[in-house]
Amino acid sequence: MIRIFITGGTFDKTYDEISGALAFEDTHLPEMLRLGRSQVEVSVRTLMMVDSLAMTETDRALIVHNCQQCEEARIVVTHGTDTMVETAAALARGVGGKTVVLTGAMIPYAFGSSDGLFNLGSALSFAQILPPGIYIAMNGQHFAWDAVRKNKQTGVFEAI
Amino acid sequence: MIRIFITGGTFDKTYDEISGALAFEDTHLPEMLRLGRSQVEVSVRTLMMVDSLAMTETDRALIVHNCQQCEEARIVVTHGTDTMVETAAALARGVGGKTVVLTGAMIPYAFGSSDGLFNLGSALSFAQILPPGIYIAMNGQHFAWDAVRKNKQTGVFEAI
Amino acid sequence: MIRIFITGGTFDKTYDEISGALAFEDTHLPEMLRLGRSQVEVSVRTLMMVDSLAMTETDRALIVHNCQQCEEARIVVTHGTDTMVETAAALARGVGGKTVVLTGAMIPYAFGSSDGLFNLGSALSFAQILPPGIYIAMNGQHFAWDAVRKNKQTGVFEAI
Amino acid sequence: MIRIFITGGTFDKTYDEISGALAFEDTHLPEMLRLGRSQVEVSVRTLMMVDSLAMTETDRALIVHNCQQCEEARIVVTHGTDTMVETAAALARGVGGKTVVLTGAMIPYAFGSSDGLFNLGSALSFAQILPPGIYIAMNGQHFAWDAVRKNKQTGVFEAI
Repeated sequence: MIRIFITGGTFDKTYDEISGALAFEDTHLPEMLRLGRSQVEVSVRTLMMVDSLAMTETDRALIVHNCQQCEEARIVVTHGTDTMVETAAALARGVGGKTVVLTGAMIPYAFGSSDGLFNLGSALSFAQILPPGIYIAMNGQHFAWDAVRKNKQTGVFEAI
Repeated sequence: MIRIFITGGTFDKTYDEISGALAFEDTHLPEMLRLGRSQVEVSVRTLMMVDSLAMTETDRALIVHNCQQCEEARIVVTHGTDTMVETAAALARGVGGKTVVLTGAMIPYAFGSSDGLFNLGSALSFAQILPPGIYIAMNGQHFAWDAVRKNKQTGVFEAI
Repeated sequence: MIRIFITGGTFDKTYDEISGALAFEDTHLPEMLRLGRSQVEVSVRTLMMVDSLAMTETDRALIVHNCQQCEEARIVVTHGTDTMVETAAALARGVGGKTVVLTGAMIPYAFGSSDGLFNLGSALSFAQILPPGIYIAMNGQHFAWDAVRKNKQTGVFEAI
Repeated sequence: MIRIFITGGTFDKTYDEISGALAFEDTHLPEMLRLGRSQVEVSVRTLMMVDSLAMTETDRALIVHNCQQCEEARIVVTHGTDTMVETAAALARGVGGKTVVLTGAMIPYAFGSSDGLFNLGSALSFAQILPPGIYIAMNGQHFAWDAVRKNKQTGVFEAI
């Protein structure tokens, strides 16, 4: 059984047709799991629905707390890419003995040509077999939390 | 570096608008890797482009031969789901010391609402960290080649 | 008020993931009207769900009968492209004083990159303002029923 | 021959994956015409690429000038929905003897589930047969420029 925590990020951005702006409504995770015909046993909970640039220390503490307290030892966290590495560091300080994989998307799932489904398939797979630790799964790759950065120019996660 | 061998299957079916029938043209794998913003180093080769129900023993021998002979020790094979288990068995008899992951799709990638991108993200991830052996990655899960069957009623791969 | 009669055709083909073949299930028309945010008052009825190559004279008589008998004077008929011109001729012999517009698609709506939504927007618009007569609306154009043929090589409808 | 003038609006908004914000890049019109397999003879020119809330009187004068000066007597203008009615009024004051149809979208074409293709098929069809005048084509309907408003609550264009 894998726990999935939703925190928002590009993954779940939608287009609000009345305001003409980007917005967060409900998460697309269940729909994505259906589309992927996933048979992985998961339990999904939405912790927050925010742009990761707007994420506060209180938000991060809530994510850490939930990863600590949940029964599952294998966890996927969907997260905005801009501060994914910061949240991974917070998780590394606060969560031990569990496999936590953070993932996200560069293009919202709702916008058709998204990398979200690819990343979700990848993150769920890594979460099933990686040993305990905090990881980021993006671009088909996985990185230990302290060995990765997001290249802000290219949008690609790279090893450091 | 991961080697990807293409053999056809639902993954790569397209709709031929002149004949009004399903058809195989060129593989969608490179486009899918771009959409997923994959940074995994891969080398893609198309071995054949067939419906797996039409796959012959000669076809299977060709797949086995290519998996044996290629330099890479980690391989993903895209394959129709109907006889994926048979090909996995042939690979188990003929290929040793390598991690080979077969994957496919229930809905063609070209048809918008496909599970293909999810499965590709999953298969590439499993291929990077599973120990040598022959596996099937479908529905977000992975199975040893001799511990799985496709349920023809539901279209789902299940452990046996 | 516009009457929409559904007869099947590429418009409504879906991919049956268990059989791996093309199939007809329920029509996509209501979903397409929602996606287009159509505010045109319409009444939709499915007459049949067939490939137009399999359409019989009895099927055509049923279409003619329904176009004659319905209250509405403005009608859109969704139809496979291969025999659209034959059905248009049958309608011309049997239906007078009404504006009937046949339309279809080269790529199934369910397959993502379809021309169906463009053709539906076009056909509904032509049906609102063309004078009584039997027309085919394809490729953004409209043709009188006896001034058009489908070019089987290119899939394009052209004036004759 | 129909002239198409591009001015931006939701139609052409894209998601900038580096900044994570909505943006305008190049127009999607040619791609949309290809997808719709349009055979209508058109000549496309991009006049500007702006959100219609940011459109100035100078911008509107430029649109009017181009509609006056172009050779074609039938014109489609893609435009943001928020001030489409204002631009239609400016065109009514400045352009005579031509059929000008303004259209737009509530959801960007690039976001998969857009009404754009439906509206484009509709606008191109109305532009071919309506008598000279300034019209708005949205939601499958057409309105004279002075008989319509956008309902800001519902996003729907309605007759006044």
